[in-house]
Amino acid sequence: MWKGRFQQQTAALLQTYSESISYDWRLWPHDIEGSVAHSAALEKAGLLTPQEREAIVKGLQAIGADIETGAFQFRMELEDIHMNIESELTRRIGDPGAKLHTARSRNDQVALDIRLYLRSEVDVLDGLLRELQSALVDLGERNAEVVIPGYTHLQRAQPVYFAHHLLAYVEMLQRDRDRLADCRKRINVMPLGSGAIAGSTILLDRQLVADLLGFPALTRNSMDAVSDRDFAIELLAGLSLVAMHLSRLSEDVILWASSEFHFIVLSDAFTTGSSLMPQKKNHRKQKSSLLAQANAMMTAN
Amino acid sequence: MWKGRFQQQTAALLQTYSESISYDWRLWPHDIEGSVAHSAALEKAGLLTPQEREAIVKGLQAIGADIETGAFQFRMELEDIHMNIESELTRRIGDPGAKLHTARSRNDQVALDIRLYLRSEVDVLDGLLRELQSALVDLGERNAEVVIPGYTHLQRAQPVYFAHHLLAYVEMLQRDRDRLADCRKRINVMPLGSGAIAGSTILLDRQLVADLLGFPALTRNSMDAVSDRDFAIELLAGLSLVAMHLSRLSEDVILWASSEFHFIVLSDAFTTGSSLMPQKKNHRKQKSSLLAQANAMMTAN
Amino acid sequence: MWKGRFQQQTAALLQTYSESISYDWRLWPHDIEGSVAHSAALEKAGLLTPQEREAIVKGLQAIGADIETGAFQFRMELEDIHMNIESELTRRIGDPGAKLHTARSRNDQVALDIRLYLRSEVDVLDGLLRELQSALVDLGERNAEVVIPGYTHLQRAQPVYFAHHLLAYVEMLQRDRDRLADCRKRINVMPLGSGAIAGSTILLDRQLVADLLGFPALTRNSMDAVSDRDFAIELLAGLSLVAMHLSRLSEDVILWASSEFHFIVLSDAFTTGSSLMPQKKNHRKQKSSLLAQANAMMTAN
Amino acid sequence: MWKGRFQQQTAALLQTYSESISYDWRLWPHDIEGSVAHSAALEKAGLLTPQEREAIVKGLQAIGADIETGAFQFRMELEDIHMNIESELTRRIGDPGAKLHTARSRNDQVALDIRLYLRSEVDVLDGLLRELQSALVDLGERNAEVVIPGYTHLQRAQPVYFAHHLLAYVEMLQRDRDRLADCRKRINVMPLGSGAIAGSTILLDRQLVADLLGFPALTRNSMDAVSDRDFAIELLAGLSLVAMHLSRLSEDVILWASSEFHFIVLSDAFTTGSSLMPQKKNHRKQKSSLLAQANAMMTAN
Repeated sequence: MWKGRFQQQTAALLQTYSESISYDWRLWPHDIEGSVAHSAALEKAGLLTPQEREAIVKGLQAIGADIETGAFQFRMELEDIHMNIESELTRRIGDPGAKLHTARSRNDQVALDIRLYLRSEVDVLDGLLRELQSALVDLGERNAEVVIPGYTHLQRAQPVYFAHHLLAYVEMLQRDRDRLADCRKRINVMPLGSGAIAGSTILLDRQLVADLLGFPALTRNSMDAVSDRDFAIELLAGLSLVAMHLSRLSEDVILWASSEFHFIVLSDAFTTGSSLMPQKKNHRKQKSSLLAQANAMMTAN
Repeated sequence: MWKGRFQQQTAALLQTYSESISYDWRLWPHDIEGSVAHSAALEKAGLLTPQEREAIVKGLQAIGADIETGAFQFRMELEDIHMNIESELTRRIGDPGAKLHTARSRNDQVALDIRLYLRSEVDVLDGLLRELQSALVDLGERNAEVVIPGYTHLQRAQPVYFAHHLLAYVEMLQRDRDRLADCRKRINVMPLGSGAIAGSTILLDRQLVADLLGFPALTRNSMDAVSDRDFAIELLAGLSLVAMHLSRLSEDVILWASSEFHFIVLSDAFTTGSSLMPQKKNHRKQKSSLLAQANAMMTAN
Repeated sequence: MWKGRFQQQTAALLQTYSESISYDWRLWPHDIEGSVAHSAALEKAGLLTPQEREAIVKGLQAIGADIETGAFQFRMELEDIHMNIESELTRRIGDPGAKLHTARSRNDQVALDIRLYLRSEVDVLDGLLRELQSALVDLGERNAEVVIPGYTHLQRAQPVYFAHHLLAYVEMLQRDRDRLADCRKRINVMPLGSGAIAGSTILLDRQLVADLLGFPALTRNSMDAVSDRDFAIELLAGLSLVAMHLSRLSEDVILWASSEFHFIVLSDAFTTGSSLMPQKKNHRKQKSSLLAQANAMMTAN
Repeated sequence: MWKGRFQQQTAALLQTYSESISYDWRLWPHDIEGSVAHSAALEKAGLLTPQEREAIVKGLQAIGADIETGAFQFRMELEDIHMNIESELTRRIGDPGAKLHTARSRNDQVALDIRLYLRSEVDVLDGLLRELQSALVDLGERNAEVVIPGYTHLQRAQPVYFAHHLLAYVEMLQRDRDRLADCRKRINVMPLGSGAIAGSTILLDRQLVADLLGFPALTRNSMDAVSDRDFAIELLAGLSLVAMHLSRLSEDVILWASSEFHFIVLSDAFTTGSSLMPQKKNHRKQKSSLLAQANAMMTAN
């Protein structure tokens, strides 16, 4: 491809430099989903026959099945997930595969895939946060009568219910979830049809593509649509706040489980020991994991 | 105050260390506004007579007027804006002033003032962003027929309308405004009544305070309410994206105004010269200013 | 100035936008110091007579004295500290003042002033870190027999000397000081002579300027010299590590002073109380201050 | 291991949470190197016989050879690279393998491995930066007579030699290398002997270990030594500056290669095309690669 004007072979070094398949392989279900929807618009525009479209859809599904089982061979010289799938599709079904990229550039395809990917990740994260909230509420209810000191500057200030302390985190996590939901609105916009930068001379039914992919809105400016990654930055900012809240909760657990505070005892199922000091059990704070937090349940002492 | 258990004088060093009046003085209108609302709740609870409340309100308004004219003397030994105003109020009106802090801690007072302050700043920023959008739309309309190259990797790709390029920024700024509006929802929650950490034994009508201050919602957990500054972090994250968009627009202007591109000529009103090279005019990119951007209008060449 | 080619007045808005005097006023001693050295090179090159140079030096010293006493009036329309001083000098001594900017641009003047300023700040910071190290060593010696638990994951692991714990911080601070010293080497290079970007056609004795200002080295490339601010970024990175170490020490103090740990009692001189809870004393962690840390000495309980 | 006091099985979830082998496997050559040196100290202390030590060294070398060929099977339930190697060693050679961890904790072992790893990475990076400097000098020499505009604010200011512009980057990269060298001094300190936190009751010859591993210095405080990762943060800060300089150089190349500037033409070997626009060639800026930069050489137009 891109044989147009080059006299020399693209250097091997540039290939290593340009490839993204080593990390964008994870977009595969979304790339297939997006191409299936795009093929519907191509058919509606008369650029694919129903038979051609059927071949494309079946071909993509077969490729997806192969990726899932690990049978698919990703090739670095094909640079990214988009070229890997498209090239294999054309190898398998011939001409119709080559027509799939009509009226689409990699720029808007990448934008689409990332949006589909992050939309689905946000939903997973939201579910985990909701689970953690439930776990905190449950724990509060099971210890409804327990009173602990409330601290300011780590000096005992006023007694509070243990549950009151836990419910503070439920509030924080609710704001985190609200923030993710707000970010999801800005992720959830369909960019296809933007071309490389200036749209396409072939008019496709963008609304049809959006409907098939569950997008409630369309991007309005092609130059903006192909370059916009604001939603990804916004998501990272939102997740930083999630991480801050989990870190604060972890600090509380660590403090409460110390011999000096001794408010809680961690279950042996969630502690590890020390290679030097066999009498000692540690609890881990190194990596943040929503699930681990949700399950790292403790018994009020 | 805080004479309870101290045997020694608080060291001068600690005072310098503890003071915040040198930067939190700007909260003054919000501190006064919040105290006026709090005094209404105190009156409703029977903790202030109507006469006492009237004295408080008039006293606070007089102090506000003095701060506005510069007649008010801030005192560092009173630490922060809250103590400066409260202490002066008590000096001026006596007993009722001393009663104002009933059922309120500095913790929830600070939380309230910051929320009032940022809510008002968000509204100012949103107005500036809207002005910039209008300026971009106007400029596009005045140059509706102008076509420029569209670039990818700064290589000429496809011709685009100059207006199309400008409208890409209108989209970016709209997302910025939507993001600020979402953040404003989380700022716009009334924390008073949370006490230092565990609420207060004196029940005040929190809804009354919220209504007077225009808050549509109340915080639900006192431990969370006094420590929550998530909204400030979220606002800074949102403003970072605004800054990124303005920087990108500035880059375009700088590029277009270069002799090599020469798409636009900047008005002399918005350029400065060089101390070494009198024939040269510079345009500034050093500091971001919404207003400056909005007005740094250019003529398509 | 810069009247060369402008037909319109520079807009008031641009002035507000372009000014830096509101924060670069603090460079004044370094700007004067740099100009005194530059005038020596101008005299050596025959561009100033000894009389002219003497007038310049005396004029600059008088201005410095006025700034120190607060008598000097900074003017925003003169943009920055460099123009404020130069303009006032010319007003006071006439022609020689106007000659001072010969063979110098604001670009290399700013680079010089920032280097002089940061070099002097680094020395102040290093002294404060050394004082804090001494305080920690003293405290360790006064409590040489005290043993406390050593913790991993905040679980008691092995007993350690209190002094051993304190000396860990002496190590951290020593690395911080070494890092500042390494950064200082890169600050300590003389940029004058770089012009706006491409040097000057007038050859001055750069080594003379460096010697007068105590710089052991000269910058070698004018384009790099006027744009290099790496040293400032490096310094901020180094100070972030200092802040991290002080924050960690503060955490230890806060933990040790809690009723649960109760290893130390903070002096009343370094605590404040609570507006709601008169029986309570707080210790402050909000702002980092080397000096405060150095003096916030504690008594092992 | 760590069977001491646990009544329950460590949960599968915690295992996923605690494991680091999925990313710390890359420490393997350094873990082996460190263990070989540690075994020498154990032998000198009489804790290993020469035969036992020989078995250990041969066993470790065989494991290293297996890892290199891909024959070694990493096991997630063994958590990290240290346990994977130690466990396999004991399986292969029995008792002597189990003795290897005497007088050593994972805490100081991790500290040692990271220092060995980063020291070797710094040396690789320094080599690449030096290569890039050479490439820039070569390019400048090959175009010694070429003059281009020098810009301030992207407005043509003064003519400069193309080589002068390139040499500015040589200066920046030299500072980067100096910074890495300074950081390397702080990486290059031997931590073994610190135990989990408080050293070990078994005295080993730390100087011997340092000599064998090429460390010119020993850590002095065990609490500091096991927790210190300042050097890693400092390295990241230094590499951020490297990335900034490479990004700036890339910007220049992109600008110069535009049709508007047209100062250089990029070799076809280092460009890729567009999927939509076959007449177009792109140059890549997405990922930073020292090597790619060093080779992305251009011909002055």
